[in-house]
Amino acid sequence: MIDPAAHYRGRRVMITGGLGFIGSNLAIRLAGLGAEVLLVDSLIPGSGGNLANIEPVKDQVRLNVADIRQASTMNYLVRGQDVIFNLAGQVSHIDSMRDPHTDLEVNCQAQLTLLEACRHHNPGTKVVFAGTRQVYGKPDHLPVSEDHLVRPTDVNGINKVAGEYYHLVYNNVFGVRACSLRLTNVYGPRQLIRHNRQGFIGWFVRLALDGGEIQIFGDGSQVRDFVHVDDAVDAFLRAGASDAVNGEVFNVGGDEPISHAELVRLLVELSGRGTCRFVEWPAEKKAIDIGSFYADSSRFRARTGWAPAVRLREGLAATLDYYRVHYHAYVDEVTDA
Amino acid sequence: MIDPAAHYRGRRVMITGGLGFIGSNLAIRLAGLGAEVLLVDSLIPGSGGNLANIEPVKDQVRLNVADIRQASTMNYLVRGQDVIFNLAGQVSHIDSMRDPHTDLEVNCQAQLTLLEACRHHNPGTKVVFAGTRQVYGKPDHLPVSEDHLVRPTDVNGINKVAGEYYHLVYNNVFGVRACSLRLTNVYGPRQLIRHNRQGFIGWFVRLALDGGEIQIFGDGSQVRDFVHVDDAVDAFLRAGASDAVNGEVFNVGGDEPISHAELVRLLVELSGRGTCRFVEWPAEKKAIDIGSFYADSSRFRARTGWAPAVRLREGLAATLDYYRVHYHAYVDEVTDA
Repeated sequence: MIDPAAHYRGRRVMITGGLGFIGSNLAIRLAGLGAEVLLVDSLIPGSGGNLANIEPVKDQVRLNVADIRQASTMNYLVRGQDVIFNLAGQVSHIDSMRDPHTDLEVNCQAQLTLLEACRHHNPGTKVVFAGTRQVYGKPDHLPVSEDHLVRPTDVNGINKVAGEYYHLVYNNVFGVRACSLRLTNVYGPRQLIRHNRQGFIGWFVRLALDGGEIQIFGDGSQVRDFVHVDDAVDAFLRAGASDAVNGEVFNVGGDEPISHAELVRLLVELSGRGTCRFVEWPAEKKAIDIGSFYADSSRFRARTGWAPAVRLREGLAATLDYYRVHYHAYVDEVTDA
Repeated sequence: MIDPAAHYRGRRVMITGGLGFIGSNLAIRLAGLGAEVLLVDSLIPGSGGNLANIEPVKDQVRLNVADIRQASTMNYLVRGQDVIFNLAGQVSHIDSMRDPHTDLEVNCQAQLTLLEACRHHNPGTKVVFAGTRQVYGKPDHLPVSEDHLVRPTDVNGINKVAGEYYHLVYNNVFGVRACSLRLTNVYGPRQLIRHNRQGFIGWFVRLALDGGEIQIFGDGSQVRDFVHVDDAVDAFLRAGASDAVNGEVFNVGGDEPISHAELVRLLVELSGRGTCRFVEWPAEKKAIDIGSFYADSSRFRARTGWAPAVRLREGLAATLDYYRVHYHAYVDEVTDA
């Protein structure tokens, strides 16, 4: 129903967090579709931005190193952009509890800065925000639809939901078209695997690559759903091309929920390396754990025709292949000052 | 079930926004109960803080003029406080849309600052946050319980909900006991009536006092519930004295929902002055209007034994009496620089 190829050819598209995991995959796809792509990234060490991520399209996209907290810069950069994929964020739950004010600046204040920039300098643009399933907290029932209560369990989740709500209010009140995709667990090539503070899936991949010991908290029965980054990219492209999604939030999740224990078994099998060990929950992690979670994405599917195309087994195998080839670009400290 | 008199005698209690409408009424009550009361207020012109509010107890409470955004000050002031009533906030919806960043600083960032101060300098304290029914946005059904989706319609509502969630996370993760009361429309003595940017009820009272024309948008059929400030104070005292409320949010609303049109008729009747006129919705107000709203407060009633005691007719009559006596303290620009 939506033809991204036709929509994006020749369009001016900005991606905040454009050197990050999802942002760079989106950039590569958009460059292939013939869009004029501007990447904005702070390249803050440890945050996920990595120049190696855009190696295949480095001559086809423009890069502007900037922090989305910088209002004057954002006021300039948003001008003339047809679509803004707003993916920049502080994504570590753990960091948000150690340094809540930085998380607030990036995930909350800077989102307002970007939207104010659009309101005053480019009100005709379209903004697609990268939300998260974290906003739901510990679910009352499964699968979780958008009608589930929002009840974040950590500072990061709170700031992400505030950042998301700003987009809806700017859509509804100021007419800056915007929507949010609440992604579940995205995995695939170009994810940060250098440290373990940005979610477990990247770290599990890293340990499987290294032949390390993958620790599972508790009995590993907690279930999650996973979205391959190519499917996440497809979701962003559809949301950016459709006015039927404006002013709303949508779950974007996978359709093969799997337990932590099974996931690790699969990773160890596919990599041919690594081991699995069950350990007690650390207190600080248990306090913000949400048990099992998987999303009901039927609203987004119905509205845009989106459906995940990459099976988990194939997606994980291809992910391991990618990192085997590009290992050093993701494990060495390439962007650190 | 909770005896506030016994609980607060000799206790050290801090009230942020202590010179404001609810804060000052709470201070007067607490001084009467024998608490050691510290009021913190920024006295920012137009925000609601008014020295006249604490005239009856000015020799029984301490006042510290400070802005809750100032971290070092908050780090100092929270020490040794048994209970913190956290009422400071930017309360104007309209201002939040004109200057969203200031609203974020006060309602979001400063709340984190206060909670970080408690976490590091007084983790044994108890914090009661003044939430708002605004976080629900336009209700799906009436009355609205705490299980209703949170869907704020303006920047103020978003920041208030983020500020509230921080309290719950600090309770759940860091053990700083906290809860939030989602108040509906509070009215009574000591409310700001100098301008019309802090909700309609204070402004309607002002117009009724002045014999002015009270404008009602649309047909006036939209329903609201009202809480007399004495009942709101009682709710705060109960929440501050009970550990059965920690980590939760509670609606605190009135039990006589009434339409705007009926409310204005009642005000005009009680004041013996003023007129009523129905006008078209201004576009900017219509965009953030939520239709009818009244709250289901049964969770808080069951948990604490609270119930509203002041009938709307008697409460409004007493409010008008108060302002007739103290008119100039509320209409002249007493705190402006």
